[in-house]
Amino acid sequence: MIGLGLIGGSVLRGAKAAGRTVWGATASKEDADKARAEGFDVVTVEEALHRSAEALVVLAVPLPALPDLLRKVPAGTRLTDVTSVKGPVHDAVHRYAPEVRFVGGHPMAGTSRSGWGAGSATLFEGAAWVVTPEEADDHLNDVMRLALDLKAHVVPTTPEEHDEAVARISHLPHLLAAVLAAVGAGGGPLALALAAGSFGDGTRVAGSRPELVRAMCEGNRDALLMAVDDALGRLGAARGSLASTGGLQKTIDAGHEGRNALVSQPQRSAVSIDLSKPGALAALRNLGSRGGRVVGLNGSTATAETS
Amino acid sequence: MIGLGLIGGSVLRGAKAAGRTVWGATASKEDADKARAEGFDVVTVEEALHRSAEALVVLAVPLPALPDLLRKVPAGTRLTDVTSVKGPVHDAVHRYAPEVRFVGGHPMAGTSRSGWGAGSATLFEGAAWVVTPEEADDHLNDVMRLALDLKAHVVPTTPEEHDEAVARISHLPHLLAAVLAAVGAGGGPLALALAAGSFGDGTRVAGSRPELVRAMCEGNRDALLMAVDDALGRLGAARGSLASTGGLQKTIDAGHEGRNALVSQPQRSAVSIDLSKPGALAALRNLGSRGGRVVGLNGSTATAETS
Repeated sequence: MIGLGLIGGSVLRGAKAAGRTVWGATASKEDADKARAEGFDVVTVEEALHRSAEALVVLAVPLPALPDLLRKVPAGTRLTDVTSVKGPVHDAVHRYAPEVRFVGGHPMAGTSRSGWGAGSATLFEGAAWVVTPEEADDHLNDVMRLALDLKAHVVPTTPEEHDEAVARISHLPHLLAAVLAAVGAGGGPLALALAAGSFGDGTRVAGSRPELVRAMCEGNRDALLMAVDDALGRLGAARGSLASTGGLQKTIDAGHEGRNALVSQPQRSAVSIDLSKPGALAALRNLGSRGGRVVGLNGSTATAETS
Repeated sequence: MIGLGLIGGSVLRGAKAAGRTVWGATASKEDADKARAEGFDVVTVEEALHRSAEALVVLAVPLPALPDLLRKVPAGTRLTDVTSVKGPVHDAVHRYAPEVRFVGGHPMAGTSRSGWGAGSATLFEGAAWVVTPEEADDHLNDVMRLALDLKAHVVPTTPEEHDEAVARISHLPHLLAAVLAAVGAGGGPLALALAAGSFGDGTRVAGSRPELVRAMCEGNRDALLMAVDDALGRLGAARGSLASTGGLQKTIDAGHEGRNALVSQPQRSAVSIDLSKPGALAALRNLGSRGGRVVGLNGSTATAETS
């Protein structure tokens, strides 16, 4: 485990709790000291990378730190990551460490606190863990097994589809919360004194640490721009309709349908995917695109739920 | 009490629980039957309006129903309302019932369910109850006493300031939630499968009944247009900054400050306002503008909290 913040520290704890042999490395002396105090094996980045050719190396460092780190990864290393954006990470791996074996990863877990102290072995229980494999092989199976050991379910997709999806359901919500909080506060003390449920809910994530929100949103620039343009188009259309006819039916109805689609997701049924057969990669990606997920792995047979 | 839906029904129950003599009227046979079954005195609108010249008449009907109703209100009646917009209500009163004594009102309580069955005597406990008096007199005191009997605190302001404030902290949040829900659902099953806290929080109120959200937002058209323009300007600026420099610092920092202003509102100190003195109306409005509120009324002395 390289990087022992909220996510890295939680993976390290959870993997140890699942019975794995683990060791970690971090540039943060504070996180290293805390992890050692809890009995974890913390070594230098070089030692972490070279200790065992059999190890699965997990990168949990901010995007800007990746190029320097990737240059140090030995050829043939089995690598994954837990960064919140996938296209730029795949690009960096292809550029700086083309000889490693890589499957991208992104556990969808909270980010409002940070550092080793904020983590826990159970952070990923019940969460979606996105994987972005470029082929279906034993390395992918190992990465999925790690996620399943941490009691997450696995959502396979491509880097592009992942980045577009999280722009819509994670990065745009943060941006709209910031805009709403600023407009509300612009109404002065009276507006804030009258604020109740809808404003409280709509601005909650604006309370997150600004530098973390920026890193997340700015790191997914291209996909976020598309999501922002979609939102600007819809909000502009609502504005035009309100100003001309006075009506907001199209906007409000579309929002209501979208919310219903979230809260009443269709029933899932169980399927098996044989990962040793040709077409397994396409089958996995297709599963993810349809809102499905891998919930178990027995040899090379994935147990999945699809809708 | 004219109108026995969520708000009107809750006022009727709460006023009775506070020891008042109450009666109600409604155009909804369903609400009338339910209220009668619980032992309430339900009469025709005409009887409700004419039964006692001493009564405080509370209108809890949708905005479009106001003109017809106001034409029936006898001159000299002491009137208030609980509608979510105030400028249009004051205009309607001046136009259709210029001889009544009127103080506008708006209790800031939930609207996601509706009808008599959704109400309760305790709906307004701890809530802000906006009043929009045009003069400080015994009628205003009676309206404030009703709100205080229902355990709300009273926020005095003007119709214009009220409508601008609720556009920012109530109507815009509903509109942005609708836009976000539609953009998220536009990402298909994968996006919805990955949606977690930020999308859930940001879209929650898009689950409210569309016709209620529309009535609320469309009824406050002028003020909502200004709030939407503020939001469009900020979101457009964020888009421009992300596209040109890649940075979102200004947007994210402003949102974080706004959220902080909401959650860490300044400590309040107690003040008294003598409502019998000249300047009382200005003092009340000033209190509301600064985020203050009336929490008690003893004779003509208001106990208030200001920040």
